[in-house]
Amino acid sequence: MRTLTRTLAAALPILDWGRRYDRQTLVQDGVAAAIVTLMLIPQSLAYATLAGLPPEVGLYASIAPLLLYALFGTSRVLAVGPVAVVSLMTATAIGSLAATGTAHYAVLALTLAFLSGLILLAMGLLRLGFLANFLSHPVMSGFISASALLITAAQLKTLLGLPVPGRDFTDIVWGMAQQLPQLHGLTALLGGATLAFLLWARRGLRPLLLRAGLPHGLADALARAGPVAGIAATAWLAWQFDLQAQGLKLVGPVPQGLPPLTWPSWDLALWQALALPALLISVVGFVESVSVGQTLAAKRRQRIEPDRELVALGASNLGAAFSGGFPVTGGFARSVVNFDAGAQTPAAGAFTAVGIGLAALLLTPVLRFVPQATLAATIVVAVLALVDLSMFRRTWAYSKADFAALLATFVGTLGWGVEAGLGAGVLLSLAMFLRRTSRPHIAEVGRVPGTESFRNVLRHAVESDPALLSLRVDESLYFANARALEDRVNAEMAARPLLRHVVLQCSAINDIDTSALESLEAIDSRLREAGVLLHLSEVKGPVMDRLQGTGFLAQLRGQVFLTHFQAVQALAPGQPALGGAG
Amino acid sequence: MRTLTRTLAAALPILDWGRRYDRQTLVQDGVAAAIVTLMLIPQSLAYATLAGLPPEVGLYASIAPLLLYALFGTSRVLAVGPVAVVSLMTATAIGSLAATGTAHYAVLALTLAFLSGLILLAMGLLRLGFLANFLSHPVMSGFISASALLITAAQLKTLLGLPVPGRDFTDIVWGMAQQLPQLHGLTALLGGATLAFLLWARRGLRPLLLRAGLPHGLADALARAGPVAGIAATAWLAWQFDLQAQGLKLVGPVPQGLPPLTWPSWDLALWQALALPALLISVVGFVESVSVGQTLAAKRRQRIEPDRELVALGASNLGAAFSGGFPVTGGFARSVVNFDAGAQTPAAGAFTAVGIGLAALLLTPVLRFVPQATLAATIVVAVLALVDLSMFRRTWAYSKADFAALLATFVGTLGWGVEAGLGAGVLLSLAMFLRRTSRPHIAEVGRVPGTESFRNVLRHAVESDPALLSLRVDESLYFANARALEDRVNAEMAARPLLRHVVLQCSAINDIDTSALESLEAIDSRLREAGVLLHLSEVKGPVMDRLQGTGFLAQLRGQVFLTHFQAVQALAPGQPALGGAG
Repeated sequence: MRTLTRTLAAALPILDWGRRYDRQTLVQDGVAAAIVTLMLIPQSLAYATLAGLPPEVGLYASIAPLLLYALFGTSRVLAVGPVAVVSLMTATAIGSLAATGTAHYAVLALTLAFLSGLILLAMGLLRLGFLANFLSHPVMSGFISASALLITAAQLKTLLGLPVPGRDFTDIVWGMAQQLPQLHGLTALLGGATLAFLLWARRGLRPLLLRAGLPHGLADALARAGPVAGIAATAWLAWQFDLQAQGLKLVGPVPQGLPPLTWPSWDLALWQALALPALLISVVGFVESVSVGQTLAAKRRQRIEPDRELVALGASNLGAAFSGGFPVTGGFARSVVNFDAGAQTPAAGAFTAVGIGLAALLLTPVLRFVPQATLAATIVVAVLALVDLSMFRRTWAYSKADFAALLATFVGTLGWGVEAGLGAGVLLSLAMFLRRTSRPHIAEVGRVPGTESFRNVLRHAVESDPALLSLRVDESLYFANARALEDRVNAEMAARPLLRHVVLQCSAINDIDTSALESLEAIDSRLREAGVLLHLSEVKGPVMDRLQGTGFLAQLRGQVFLTHFQAVQALAPGQPALGGAG
Repeated sequence: MRTLTRTLAAALPILDWGRRYDRQTLVQDGVAAAIVTLMLIPQSLAYATLAGLPPEVGLYASIAPLLLYALFGTSRVLAVGPVAVVSLMTATAIGSLAATGTAHYAVLALTLAFLSGLILLAMGLLRLGFLANFLSHPVMSGFISASALLITAAQLKTLLGLPVPGRDFTDIVWGMAQQLPQLHGLTALLGGATLAFLLWARRGLRPLLLRAGLPHGLADALARAGPVAGIAATAWLAWQFDLQAQGLKLVGPVPQGLPPLTWPSWDLALWQALALPALLISVVGFVESVSVGQTLAAKRRQRIEPDRELVALGASNLGAAFSGGFPVTGGFARSVVNFDAGAQTPAAGAFTAVGIGLAALLLTPVLRFVPQATLAATIVVAVLALVDLSMFRRTWAYSKADFAALLATFVGTLGWGVEAGLGAGVLLSLAMFLRRTSRPHIAEVGRVPGTESFRNVLRHAVESDPALLSLRVDESLYFANARALEDRVNAEMAARPLLRHVVLQCSAINDIDTSALESLEAIDSRLREAGVLLHLSEVKGPVMDRLQGTGFLAQLRGQVFLTHFQAVQALAPGQPALGGAG
């Protein structure tokens, strides 16, 4: 019985923190939930429109996923829901398969969330979280900065009231430049004013409220509600002065009520078409979510478990798929707000879900008057914070190879879309990594006179012998660098007519894969045919264990020495055991 | 002037060996060329038909490419020309774009050779030879074994006279099983007899000739000529008894003369369609060629230069594209024969080209009588030698991860074709590698009592302090394992409430990439917020040099210690500089 409880507690973190839940925690979680709800309502609406979906879908995607994450998640403060980059990826993935606003488009979004949920769940259960490592920091950074610019460009046309078609960055920017004279004055005025207010509110609102004498907690909460104020004010203006009649585009009628029960498509051909985007959304969403979660958990000496986070995010996305939503993940800004506002347990997320549910029930009648330009301004302000241009400078200074991966991802994403950008970045960083490790540091070593230690002949005054070559490889041997060792030994062999023995000092070799084993066999047999013996020294225990059963050791005519000193003593001509002339 | 000569000699190896060319070398090269020519004539014809091309194309592909390789190649004995696996890849690449036997099909083959030549040349000039490392030994082995089985299955239907359509392995095998009752008796008899003779000739002919009193050299040469004898004998039978009238399929009319001047297609859409196959052909051909070249060069203490081999193979393929050929590379069997027959310089290759040229001029009238089943038998005998089933057993015993890559490539190639097979193998071996390195060995170390050395706390009885955690990472830090270090430090921090200092012992870290640098920054700031200081010890010189300019060192509140002992001495509470209670 106790084992069962433990197993359940391991699978469901709620059984752990839920047991110790008390009144004080409830208050802290409730306050945090209220603040996050205020922040999440405008973001949910805005990110749904960014994904090409009706605004209420954003609210739906912020209810069931939050409840499910509260059940399965290992982070105490991660706030799940629609986020900018994933919404953009959703729009890109399904934008070419259906027209925005159609029922089919909505079903595609549900299916994408469903597939993404399945992939995350499978990765979690199969412990494949390491696959997220394919996305290196420079690739993620380049991708997020480019996505933010793409989103900004697309929102600016809504904000200015310009009917520019297309999703391509250069198309949009060029189209806006051309159509600028036809901008819709009222839309641009309202959008620009909202944008200016929101930009100011990020920095200026909180100090103002504090100076007005409000207590810190309330000032914080109200400052977070800046976007809500912007939405309320512009919606009121639109309603009061009937601005729609003057050409201002509004959100329009929004259905009232809780999320509907929905089904993704079961069309296998469609699944195939959406598999790659779903995979990318899963991996990008997971990487974003995990890094936020880790940062916040560490601040309180807590920890999250990446493989179980995959399961929790998978469940959240499956929840989104069956409750009228679209792909979700853990958001950076809202999680930080949740943390700062004092959330103690995932219950805060559940309370947020309740808050959003109330909004879906009660607020929808007034949402119809929200100008589209206001939502666009909300998005622009949120995503501009994601552009990190300093990363370019820092990466350039630190590593040209990483800079190349960053630049390729950034340019690829802006120019050819999210899949091309991520693909280029991942491939380039793998290629750079292979290139770096494919030329491992291989030092010829010689004996430091009078000692038993061996050093690089290029850096130290050491003794060596023309008949004996000592090579130290400073890297594990695997498929990418096995041929480099072959090359090096071949070159040394061709250059040294007197050579009789080659000793590989293996002290830095942690692993030898099959390719490297075959390369060692090839090196041994080539050396032997040229009348040279191959020996090994200082092979680590685990490596030696694996070599034991192989044909390589069986065929090796040379010896395996415990220390390199022993090897040199045993093999040096006229130097049987004690020192002497070399 | 001398510099110019040296530069030229570096670019054109012929200027090096050509200067020392003498009469004895001429004789040795001439004899080797004669033997290789005898072997190459039937193979050229057979591999051309395997690629779906008229047989004379095989002769054309064995003239200009050999001359160009003799000019640029760094291997003294590599014999270039059509090879089985590349011919299969050619057939797969263009088989879906044009019908066999059409003029368009031939142009596609030229274009594939042209693109492959360009890719090889570019890889050589840009020093991208390391990209071939993506193909690990298990992947190459699985790919070649599967290709050999695919080729054998396709040739068996010709050998048995069964009109089975399709290129898919299971389709062919299943089709043959169904159609077996309809097999063409005469074709199967002749094909089977040729196959039996060739299989016997590989082993049995040479001893027989020796016993008959022939000198070693002549016996060798005649034994190599087994396939030629088989072709001559069956062609004579077909002509003498007019076997074509009885349903035996012959090669048919072959144009007489030297290779024509041809042009690849300049259609960019076509180039795009052929780009991936051309890349795969280039890389597979290069890997095959380089490993043969290295093995043979080492036997004489010579060496080849991979990046210049790329240029030479590129030139050879461009030559094939403009002289009526198809993609070529260095062949294993014929290079070994060339080596064994005593070839000393690439001139042997040029002499072989002359021999093949003479065959194209003089032999073509009799080639029309060669039965197709005879060529099929030649191919089957050649490729069966490529199947290496022992590799499966050895890899399974040595590394399950490498076995998975081998099996995926093998099954993928047989079931879904060469591109799917290679793709699956490469991706799986990269994923396995990332998985292995994404969990680097991170040991908590403690001080061996009374010494200055630190060992793994799990393996040794050492001293440690609850306020100080010493971690040693046994791997360079890069994007695939940076997060594992974050995880580990987070977990330790969550588990140790008394922790005040974390010291990373960096003695095994050869490199820190941008991702790992950011992870270190994240670790530092998380530790700091939890009231713990991060320190480093034993950072290698080059790593320290790169860290100097970064924000990480500027923000690090902890210290960088020269030795780990110094770190522990300085940080231990109540243990200011000299030993004492811990």
